[in-house]
Amino acid sequence: MQFSIGIDIGGTNSVMGIVDKLGKIQFEAKLKTQDYPNVENFVEACYHLLIPQLDILGINNFKGIGLGAPNGNYYNGSIEFAPNLIWKGVIPLAKLFRDKFKLESIVTNDANAAAIGEMMYGAAKGMNDFIMVTLGTGVGSGFVANGNIIYGHDGFAGELGHVIAVRDGRMCGCGRKGCLETYSSATGIVRTANEILETNNTYSILRTIDTITSKDIYDAALKGDKIALEIFDFTGKILGQVLADAIAITSPEAIILFGGLAQAGKFIFDPTHQYMEENLLKIYKGKVKLLPSELKETDAAILGAAALVWL
Amino acid sequence: MQFSIGIDIGGTNSVMGIVDKLGKIQFEAKLKTQDYPNVENFVEACYHLLIPQLDILGINNFKGIGLGAPNGNYYNGSIEFAPNLIWKGVIPLAKLFRDKFKLESIVTNDANAAAIGEMMYGAAKGMNDFIMVTLGTGVGSGFVANGNIIYGHDGFAGELGHVIAVRDGRMCGCGRKGCLETYSSATGIVRTANEILETNNTYSILRTIDTITSKDIYDAALKGDKIALEIFDFTGKILGQVLADAIAITSPEAIILFGGLAQAGKFIFDPTHQYMEENLLKIYKGKVKLLPSELKETDAAILGAAALVWL
Repeated sequence: MQFSIGIDIGGTNSVMGIVDKLGKIQFEAKLKTQDYPNVENFVEACYHLLIPQLDILGINNFKGIGLGAPNGNYYNGSIEFAPNLIWKGVIPLAKLFRDKFKLESIVTNDANAAAIGEMMYGAAKGMNDFIMVTLGTGVGSGFVANGNIIYGHDGFAGELGHVIAVRDGRMCGCGRKGCLETYSSATGIVRTANEILETNNTYSILRTIDTITSKDIYDAALKGDKIALEIFDFTGKILGQVLADAIAITSPEAIILFGGLAQAGKFIFDPTHQYMEENLLKIYKGKVKLLPSELKETDAAILGAAALVWL
Repeated sequence: MQFSIGIDIGGTNSVMGIVDKLGKIQFEAKLKTQDYPNVENFVEACYHLLIPQLDILGINNFKGIGLGAPNGNYYNGSIEFAPNLIWKGVIPLAKLFRDKFKLESIVTNDANAAAIGEMMYGAAKGMNDFIMVTLGTGVGSGFVANGNIIYGHDGFAGELGHVIAVRDGRMCGCGRKGCLETYSSATGIVRTANEILETNNTYSILRTIDTITSKDIYDAALKGDKIALEIFDFTGKILGQVLADAIAITSPEAIILFGGLAQAGKFIFDPTHQYMEENLLKIYKGKVKLLPSELKETDAAILGAAALVWL
């Protein structure tokens, strides 16, 4: 059996694993990204964590290394100006790993890696056309058409989180207004909660909490809190509207939701699906599945990165 | 040299041609689609128009037939419920042509055919990632990623004209509100003209016209009419905003504008480009070309359809 190495680089932690072609993680390890202000030392540390496994399994049995990273660019193998990473500017990540490990190394961004993981081992198995949407602190996405990730001419396609959901809407970290991620993310839903609580006098458990988190809103919804349900309804409405427009562009078989907010289950899936259907052009109605990810949150990052080398 | 047959089927007229691989139209003919309520008779009529050419050039030198048609579906070769065609329901167009001509026959919709024509012979030559937008009575589009048309899982991808440009905006023929084509098409710009003339007292040549057409607005703009320029500015603003969102999804090298409204030149290109840039996420700014089609309006339909068989 052949193996690949999957490494997911995050602002705080990086996780890595050795994965067989069937998607079984054979070995797993973790590093604190911030402990390595010098990226060469980070590559070195990965090497020392993985080398015993390379010796046991035989380096010839490794197809390559897949790397998922914020602002990772598939075409040139670099991380480019990632705001949340300790490494600034342009980092030639694939080259550094290739030189150290003597293995083919491929970079992409986290959402594209998640899409590939889902396509090889998860909810999108066998699909050629789908959209992966990651609902975390922000909103990321990976678009797959004709069985391939849409990278675009510069490697930066798939920024669904920065499609304008509400014209002249909420201020976004990107400097523009009304981006999807200011509404339908873990941070967006908290903004919605604060807005609704301010403009409305209905009783809510949430009024007793000082600094509301997305988890608080979920817990309140579980208890049937009306305001919490209204918050999820609004969040799903904005997401459903944007998904309906995205469907008009790529007509996917399914849209897969992943990440913290997706774990709210029916509270987010039900309104998103309802508003998506309501807003669809007739030829797409009732055709597009809205599915939860089938990968464990902890495994998905490693699996997605590892799967990069099999495409 | 090998040849292909390109046939563009329209509600009123159908045009067809024999095209060599370099994109030169060697023979051209035209039929009134509405004269053939029975589609088999239409295929027969095409056959009789083209057969002398097939005899001269040798049937073995033909790679196949490409057909562009409204609601044409690439996957199953059918026209499905095209509202503007005399043939109702599902028409197995590719099969009918294949059986009659004994040549490979491929169907797609008009906007995708235009995209393929542009990629092989026009402004998108050598590009792997671009968006074709046809601004006619309605708005059509063809998205190309990784060198392939994005057909989506059902063959119906690329309906940019039905992306919601203005939430709860103008009523669209599709039954929904605010679709791009209610603003940035030949009919949309006339609606804008009537709206602006009604809500505004500024002098305009357009006030002397009973039933304004998009041509009248163009002619007035040529004369420096302020209202006409304002109408184009608004039309370009809505189009530019939608294009900025589409870029966030597929990150194309270029967007190519085609069709009647695109022929207004700088009057539509300048505001569209300005608002597109203003609304782009930073990583895309200054990178995406906005180009006019390089195919003659009369040739484009035939060339695009004919090019289908070379992909």
